[in-house]
Amino acid sequence: MPRPIKISEAVVRRLPLYLRVLDDVAQTRGIKLLSSQELGERAGVTPALVRKDLAWFGEFGKQGVGYDVHYLRNELRRILHLDREVRIALVGMGNLGVALARYHRRRYLNEPDFHLHIVAMFDSDPRKIGVLVEGVPVLPVAELPGLVERLNIKLAIIAVPAEAAQGVADQLVGAGVKGILNFAPMKLKVPEDVHVVTADLSAELQCLAFYLQP
Amino acid sequence: MPRPIKISEAVVRRLPLYLRVLDDVAQTRGIKLLSSQELGERAGVTPALVRKDLAWFGEFGKQGVGYDVHYLRNELRRILHLDREVRIALVGMGNLGVALARYHRRRYLNEPDFHLHIVAMFDSDPRKIGVLVEGVPVLPVAELPGLVERLNIKLAIIAVPAEAAQGVADQLVGAGVKGILNFAPMKLKVPEDVHVVTADLSAELQCLAFYLQP
Repeated sequence: MPRPIKISEAVVRRLPLYLRVLDDVAQTRGIKLLSSQELGERAGVTPALVRKDLAWFGEFGKQGVGYDVHYLRNELRRILHLDREVRIALVGMGNLGVALARYHRRRYLNEPDFHLHIVAMFDSDPRKIGVLVEGVPVLPVAELPGLVERLNIKLAIIAVPAEAAQGVADQLVGAGVKGILNFAPMKLKVPEDVHVVTADLSAELQCLAFYLQP
Repeated sequence: MPRPIKISEAVVRRLPLYLRVLDDVAQTRGIKLLSSQELGERAGVTPALVRKDLAWFGEFGKQGVGYDVHYLRNELRRILHLDREVRIALVGMGNLGVALARYHRRRYLNEPDFHLHIVAMFDSDPRKIGVLVEGVPVLPVAELPGLVERLNIKLAIIAVPAEAAQGVADQLVGAGVKGILNFAPMKLKVPEDVHVVTADLSAELQCLAFYLQP
């Protein structure tokens, strides 16, 4: 089934949630089928939304039977392009960059099916160049354009201060990057074919504040 | 207007987006009114969704006129409980914790209206105790229960390794915390009246991978 031209970002954002549930369930011996009710409950959404979201991509469930866990998991991985290696560059090796590298490394050491790999790290501070973080050397930002292109890196994480972020984004986009996870607290300007997710930690805290009793 | 009992989390998650747009617009001299079209465009959602989301909380716009920027901004701040100080504890002062503290501090230094304050930081490593991070001393985790209660802290950020996260969450909840932003890559078990947001960085990257061309 050809992918529809425009799928809402809200739908896309729920796919990793479903995948996470299926990953968990697949590790539980004996669970081969999952109803939209169960999948929804574990993912924190309604069964109707599960069915509607997945229907964008094909017919995965059987009425009254549910979803085949193994099959749906593979399909979601394919839809998210996680069935092959995705190479990532990490720019900015301050506290946040190092924490992200460690966090990420642990994730894919524990999960052999997790193919999102940070293959290059960059910083502009000469004192950090050559330092090994999780076994990967930190390289000077000057080498970013050439290396990102040569290694065919399509995703990048920006963990530099706000004032440096747009310059880094421009270099990444110029070298062929199509997706950016931005931790700098500002809005990046990128061409239309480049997708940016801004990790806004303040927004997460604001959501939590909503639930506080007055 | 009394708050409805159950508002979907998806709605709540968009409120900070709208607030951010209004904050930006409020800083632009001369803009006093904003249509749902403009608000939606800047927040990245449809005008219909803007109107639907806000309708949960009251009637803020005037047909054909739009929203009063100043008024709606104040109302959203009130709805999100951001019109008063919200005190936050940060647990785990590794690279991630320090990065979060710095990021957060910069945010509220630049925005006098941003009242989410990290007022206490904790770690279990004796070498970190007493260190000042952004001017706040790191305290031993043993002091967490007493201090969280005494300072009336209701929100917390967990930035400890996965294996320590549930223990920390239990202590926080026992001391009265009602909202947790969890950076440990695992699902926390908490009572029903406690709200948890898990920051899943891998899920963000998976969303980006979706948009890559095969």
